Amino acid sequence: MTNEATRILGLDPGLRRTGWGVVAAEGSRLRWIAHGVITPPEVAPLSERLLFLLEAVGQVCVDQDCDEAAIEEVFVNMNPVSTLKLGHARAAVMLAPARHGLSVAEYSPNLIKKAVVGAGHADKTQIAFMVKRLLPAAGDVKADAADALAVAITHAQMRKRALLTVLGGAA
Amino acid sequence: MTNEATRILGLDPGLRRTGWGVVAAEGSRLRWIAHGVITPPEVAPLSERLLFLLEAVGQVCVDQDCDEAAIEEVFVNMNPVSTLKLGHARAAVMLAPARHGLSVAEYSPNLIKKAVVGAGHADKTQIAFMVKRLLPAAGDVKADAADALAVAITHAQMRKRALLTVLGGAA
Repeated sequence: MTNEATRILGLDPGLRRTGWGVVAAEGSRLRWIAHGVITPPEVAPLSERLLFLLEAVGQVCVDQDCDEAAIEEVFVNMNPVSTLKLGHARAAVMLAPARHGLSVAEYSPNLIKKAVVGAGHADKTQIAFMVKRLLPAAGDVKADAADALAVAITHAQMRKRALLTVLGGAA
Repeated sequence: MTNEATRILGLDPGLRRTGWGVVAAEGSRLRWIAHGVITPPEVAPLSERLLFLLEAVGQVCVDQDCDEAAIEEVFVNMNPVSTLKLGHARAAVMLAPARHGLSVAEYSPNLIKKAVVGAGHADKTQIAFMVKRLLPAAGDVKADAADALAVAITHAQMRKRALLTVLGGAA
């Protein structure tokens, strides 16, 4: 890796399972760095489960030397109790990179599907398939981590487009 | 204040306005210490607004030398978008005391009303009225801070009951 590569942390938050994935983006090239799943203790007060998430994701930011972070926007169609739980987990997971000075971009589920698979209505299997195609070094990737890597890939594409717009003055 | 007084931080989370209130509990005595409202910047990425909340509440924990914290459980009857926003704010607000090693108790809205007003169906005006009665030194307290002080008062009562149960072996 040269010094110009940007390490992007993608996050797929959940109170029981939070997936994370790191890719290095350098121009059009994308390289897999690492991925994993964080599982907070299930039998603990909510504040401690959230703290576990905050600290574990923070450790990933440091260990993987991340430069930028990205997370999926929530498509609110669940029951209110699930929505509230996801809101808690999502905040803890976003706060970790924010505390380390990283920006945290948010992308809609449809945008992520389009960026990775090319269609806004792709299912999880297609996403996992394309993540493996785009990042062959990742090997076998479980669902939560695949979703996290998909967010990181999306951010790599979006930031490249934004950079080109700035440099080229294109609309 | 003697060394035996426990400083309790009550929290009323919100992405736009987060109320906080600190009381000192010593046996049956309750004393007002401080209260306030935190207003994160409205025009900023979500991660930065949450970080503002995390750091501001953390500063209160340190400044007011808090020992324990308490927060209201969410009664999920709002629209999903509001629920998600509240979930984000609530996690950031709970994480602040958790990071400083404080326990964070959660109480249902009905329990708080019963503890402060004596009835599970009290409205906000009654709560603010009773908070001023119980903590005359607090002076004029705005709604968000009154709710936060009500949570702190509730925790003071509940922990006293728990301590008496432990000491006396009562059920």
